[in-house]
Amino acid sequence: MATLSDIAVSAAINSLSAILFLVAFAILRLQPVNDRVYFPKWYLKGIRDSPTSSGTFVKRFVNLDVKMYLKFLNWMPAALRMPEPELIEHAGLDSAVYIRIYLLGLKIFVPITLLSFGVLVPVNYTGENFDELKANMKDLTYSDIDKLSISNIAPGSKRLYAHIVMAYVFTLWTCYTLYNEYMIVAKMRLHFLAAERRRPDQFTVLVRNVPPDIDESVSEHVEHFFCVNHPEHYLSHQVVYNANTLADMVAAKKSLQNWLTYYTNKLERKNKRKIVKTGFWGLWGKKADAIDYYTEEIEKLSKEVEAERERVLNDPSAIIPAAFVSFKSRWGAAVCAQTEQSHNPTLWLTDWAPEPRDVYWENLAIPFVELNLRRLLMAIALFGLTFCFMVPIAFVQTLANIEGIQKVFPFLKPLIEMGSVKSVIQGFLPGIILKIFLILLPTIIMTMSKIEGYTAYSALQTRSAGKYHLFLLVNVFLGSIIAGTALQQLKEFSNQSPTEIPQTVGVSIPMKATFFITYVMVDGWSGIAAEILRLVPLIIFHLKNAFLVKTEKDREEAMDPGCLNWAVSEPRIQLYFLLGLVYSAVTPILLPFIVIFFAFSYLVFRHQIINVYDQKYESGATFWPDVHRRIIIGMMISHILFLGLLNTKKASNANYFLIPLPILTYWFFRFCKGRFESQFRRFPLENAMKKDTLEKATEPNLNLKLYLQDAYVHPVFKGSTQFERPTAVDEEENNPLVATRRSLIHRGSKQGSSDDNMGISAV
Amino acid sequence: MATLSDIAVSAAINSLSAILFLVAFAILRLQPVNDRVYFPKWYLKGIRDSPTSSGTFVKRFVNLDVKMYLKFLNWMPAALRMPEPELIEHAGLDSAVYIRIYLLGLKIFVPITLLSFGVLVPVNYTGENFDELKANMKDLTYSDIDKLSISNIAPGSKRLYAHIVMAYVFTLWTCYTLYNEYMIVAKMRLHFLAAERRRPDQFTVLVRNVPPDIDESVSEHVEHFFCVNHPEHYLSHQVVYNANTLADMVAAKKSLQNWLTYYTNKLERKNKRKIVKTGFWGLWGKKADAIDYYTEEIEKLSKEVEAERERVLNDPSAIIPAAFVSFKSRWGAAVCAQTEQSHNPTLWLTDWAPEPRDVYWENLAIPFVELNLRRLLMAIALFGLTFCFMVPIAFVQTLANIEGIQKVFPFLKPLIEMGSVKSVIQGFLPGIILKIFLILLPTIIMTMSKIEGYTAYSALQTRSAGKYHLFLLVNVFLGSIIAGTALQQLKEFSNQSPTEIPQTVGVSIPMKATFFITYVMVDGWSGIAAEILRLVPLIIFHLKNAFLVKTEKDREEAMDPGCLNWAVSEPRIQLYFLLGLVYSAVTPILLPFIVIFFAFSYLVFRHQIINVYDQKYESGATFWPDVHRRIIIGMMISHILFLGLLNTKKASNANYFLIPLPILTYWFFRFCKGRFESQFRRFPLENAMKKDTLEKATEPNLNLKLYLQDAYVHPVFKGSTQFERPTAVDEEENNPLVATRRSLIHRGSKQGSSDDNMGISAV
Repeated sequence: MATLSDIAVSAAINSLSAILFLVAFAILRLQPVNDRVYFPKWYLKGIRDSPTSSGTFVKRFVNLDVKMYLKFLNWMPAALRMPEPELIEHAGLDSAVYIRIYLLGLKIFVPITLLSFGVLVPVNYTGENFDELKANMKDLTYSDIDKLSISNIAPGSKRLYAHIVMAYVFTLWTCYTLYNEYMIVAKMRLHFLAAERRRPDQFTVLVRNVPPDIDESVSEHVEHFFCVNHPEHYLSHQVVYNANTLADMVAAKKSLQNWLTYYTNKLERKNKRKIVKTGFWGLWGKKADAIDYYTEEIEKLSKEVEAERERVLNDPSAIIPAAFVSFKSRWGAAVCAQTEQSHNPTLWLTDWAPEPRDVYWENLAIPFVELNLRRLLMAIALFGLTFCFMVPIAFVQTLANIEGIQKVFPFLKPLIEMGSVKSVIQGFLPGIILKIFLILLPTIIMTMSKIEGYTAYSALQTRSAGKYHLFLLVNVFLGSIIAGTALQQLKEFSNQSPTEIPQTVGVSIPMKATFFITYVMVDGWSGIAAEILRLVPLIIFHLKNAFLVKTEKDREEAMDPGCLNWAVSEPRIQLYFLLGLVYSAVTPILLPFIVIFFAFSYLVFRHQIINVYDQKYESGATFWPDVHRRIIIGMMISHILFLGLLNTKKASNANYFLIPLPILTYWFFRFCKGRFESQFRRFPLENAMKKDTLEKATEPNLNLKLYLQDAYVHPVFKGSTQFERPTAVDEEENNPLVATRRSLIHRGSKQGSSDDNMGISAV
Repeated sequence: MATLSDIAVSAAINSLSAILFLVAFAILRLQPVNDRVYFPKWYLKGIRDSPTSSGTFVKRFVNLDVKMYLKFLNWMPAALRMPEPELIEHAGLDSAVYIRIYLLGLKIFVPITLLSFGVLVPVNYTGENFDELKANMKDLTYSDIDKLSISNIAPGSKRLYAHIVMAYVFTLWTCYTLYNEYMIVAKMRLHFLAAERRRPDQFTVLVRNVPPDIDESVSEHVEHFFCVNHPEHYLSHQVVYNANTLADMVAAKKSLQNWLTYYTNKLERKNKRKIVKTGFWGLWGKKADAIDYYTEEIEKLSKEVEAERERVLNDPSAIIPAAFVSFKSRWGAAVCAQTEQSHNPTLWLTDWAPEPRDVYWENLAIPFVELNLRRLLMAIALFGLTFCFMVPIAFVQTLANIEGIQKVFPFLKPLIEMGSVKSVIQGFLPGIILKIFLILLPTIIMTMSKIEGYTAYSALQTRSAGKYHLFLLVNVFLGSIIAGTALQQLKEFSNQSPTEIPQTVGVSIPMKATFFITYVMVDGWSGIAAEILRLVPLIIFHLKNAFLVKTEKDREEAMDPGCLNWAVSEPRIQLYFLLGLVYSAVTPILLPFIVIFFAFSYLVFRHQIINVYDQKYESGATFWPDVHRRIIIGMMISHILFLGLLNTKKASNANYFLIPLPILTYWFFRFCKGRFESQFRRFPLENAMKKDTLEKATEPNLNLKLYLQDAYVHPVFKGSTQFERPTAVDEEENNPLVATRRSLIHRGSKQGSSDDNMGISAV
């Protein structure tokens, strides 16, 4: 195994690669042609204009100012300069709190690192178990690193008490930091919600599982139910159409239009008409002129889209038994969202409506029993994915051998039969298949969450993060410590006693320190540096720019700011928390690497949030309880493994001192849950009332009904003139004000004139 | 171990003792002098009059009608005769649903018994593993019973599939029955709540952790908070006084009054004044005339009570930061109870107020952090109680030896030193101490629940039942199967693998069948028969009758109808469910005994509920989810143990068929929880609105404020003329209507004249 100098070399290499990425980034970001890749956020805000539209031809694409290259690291202080309130204003609370996770990592691990280097490293170094270890265990892999770790303490030594005391100190410090952070985030959320502008979801509740009624349509039924049960607060509602097919068709149309643009551009630039095959993927079929063909196809599809839209709007069976119900006040919505409506708890399920952009429309219509079945199936699938994911991969690997490939793609035969190619395929194919699986994994997990039936993207992300966290925990953390697949581990564990398992894992923890140090450098340092380079969006942007972009608006659309991929990145951070906590009392040498990771990530993501990412929705940091919980899970894992490790050190008396640690940690978790969690789940009536009162005072003439009218319309109907709200129910729609309202919408004004509805609610 | 004939003898003995109890009951209940012991419910209802007040002197005490003795079992059909709706009307939903637990036992186990006797007994009997077993395992205890059990099946035999199939059939049947029963009980609850008369708790919410305010008193703060945040619904509130000392003093006064009555009676009857010692327990101190002494003491205490009452009412620090807040409608109360009030989730905690009689006043003032600490401590204490309860008992046993007793009670010395007494003490004392502990156990558990800080007796009962269930599970069920104390088991288990534990337990299950059969007969049959005899209340009633009763009202008070002791009896029933489920596929011979237990208990408790028990509060069967959950826990334990047992049968392939069983059962649990549980926890707005509307239509002039005025006054203030509601807040109190209201109360009329408050709420 690696010695200290090996680690130093590895660190140098990884630092170098990270620095290379940074230099590449520093150069690329200065080129005006890449401006939209590295500063899309500012374009979306409308603050920045394309620099390509001014200056000489060369200057449009390349930056020739030498001075700027010299200050190639100046993005770092710039990223730190923006104060937090401004950051929240600029990028939203979700992003601002997300980077606080890295800050939390620093807060936890910097003092822990100092302490453990001050106390544990000297204690370990003078432990003098090393020669003996070396002599006795030739076969096991011990190294220099172990002189600094707990391995250098002789079994039964009194020195182990230092480690136990430090374990307590570290836990106390972590809990203290976590508590403070929870409090700060809760306060930030509170301020954010209080300062938030009016949003449709503040007034709206998503009602699911509307029971069928023989006499009434879904819309009428909803209207009557809420008029009866929330008479003073109900305002209006929006039925939900099953427009999944329509959405698919619209997407298909958009793709065809892209092709049309592509061929039109080609015609304009090269003055050459292109012939395409009209069959599958353009590989075979009749040949036709590209532009004519696509124009015709788009026309055909447009008609179909119209017909489908007509069908959806007029077919009562296209209305699914769910609705967005809006209330006259935030108070009314808060009440409806938090209470039980019907005596049958599977009907009239109410919950806060997600933000309009956050709604996952496909899942709105799933009935209760099916939802339960889906969750059962996905729980089993998650178990399979976590513990048996190697099985299908091995199967694909056996299929995807040379013979298989030759069968499916006979034209590749001569290529494959070249000796060198053959050996490359045989050598790398299984590895590549595994890598592909790991790249696809987040998508697979997200699909599983979608099947589970959550109705908001934010909920999907949260659920996916949970699944991915489990996967990383079992397959990366445990899988790296113990050789063998997760399934083998599971089998082995089920034949061991509950006290043996932590021992088996615990004893190999110090031995894996060097592996994890390398992991932190490769996955952490270089991974983060690659994140800032944005290689994939860079390439895609330039491809789009070359083939599709005609107008400035097209260029706007070609820009892909991306967003924080919560479901993937948060569980990965958690892995670093876990590593830091597990190794803090065992092999402190790992801690500086973790600290560098957190500091570097904080810098990079702060830059990305300011300049790049454009969040799809704003949840107001509702994810924080998950972050908190997972760090506590990490702490408890570290306690149990440390307990197992100490057991093998024959410090059985010392054990009893450690047992309260996980119990107290669990209690701390329960305590924080009670103290804070509901601030992230529910909206208190006190605050709702405050906002309502304030609004009534400042905008007494607000026409809320008009404001909410189209908020929860399925995106495919947005902006379509054919979309008429169902008039069957709303008597008021027949009064002369309606015309005024419609015209107001078309003028884009959102705050209408005084209105009868507000008058009613004020009574 | 016992053979079939041994069991038959044991059954005969136990049946005989049960029949003896029943005969004793049949004779005693016919005696007019016992009428108040066996039919107190009817007296409380005011339907039955003391038969002692009419007829000849002898007839007052003894029933001489021979015919009635001949029909001594006629209480059984009488108990079954009352239809369920009438039973609910008569005894409340809690009681009616409680006996449905026994009915559920019959519904589950009668078909299972028939099936297992039809299928498994023949399969087992022809299994022909018996001779081999007998030959190979001389040391182990096998008996005739084993010919009918799974022990008679050879390892690896194909016959085991019959058991696996039956395990599935039993589980499906149990789930089906459980689902149906849940549905029925939920419907019953719904009807009950809908038909319920107006009760103060329907309009009232208990608010805890009112934050301190510098400028305002608690009462003002509550008033302002709810006026602001529930402006259209808030009606009034009742602050809570810390009257724990006062309550103690009132109790002490009552006890003194009892003694006074006792001595006065004695004087009247025997014309002899008694001298008492005034010191501790009347054992030493100054001598004084009893009547004079107690009269004086009572007078002194009365003054103190008055002073304390004055202090509590006027001292602002005696007001605890909790209040009962009442609303103008059930809808308003339902909203407030189910929503979050403040952004700090540890303040302004709202929940449904318990029924006034159900409130546990002592616990209303515990702040959030302390509550958390208390629960942590009690969780640790519960662990200790369950697994280490033998440790303190052994300690007391060593203390309570001959020498210790001699030291504390030196006057007993000559008695103890008699040889026979000494040996009796030495032989029985440890056993008696254990027995005393087991008798005290429910009280200990209830005290633990009280420390946990629940605010209603119903909640305390529920929590205690959970703790007792755990205790029985570990110490009676597991403790009987595996020798040794729970702590030893725990140690042993922690050194075994998760797959070994069910094997260890599972393999000894068939061997313990005879023990559990005896247990069912002794604890179940005879215990239930003893329940109906009510020996302790019978004796206490006659003692009170002899010494304390002067008037008919005194006799009314001497009557102790008792009530269902939910915290003790429900977990005991669960033990029978567990035994039945565990043995259903293993040793079917146990099942008839369980069935007889359920049938007999159903009969007895139906009789007791109709004639005896007087429930202290009515929760509307909120306990049912607990019953359901515990039966499912029993099912899952039975699955896991059966799996372990089959493992030892070398039917490892068969195992895989069984693994889905606990998973599906758990899913069934989750499904039922989602489908039904919130019907037992929350009150849906739809139903609240329905009741409100109905009430508004039928009683438009209801004065709700008056109705609720004194509902949540601490019992020690009830009926006291000194108790004035705080007038500081309520402006309306100053209007001339107040006088009218007060006089209305004194006339006892609860439905006042038309009132300004209803007028306000109707706006």
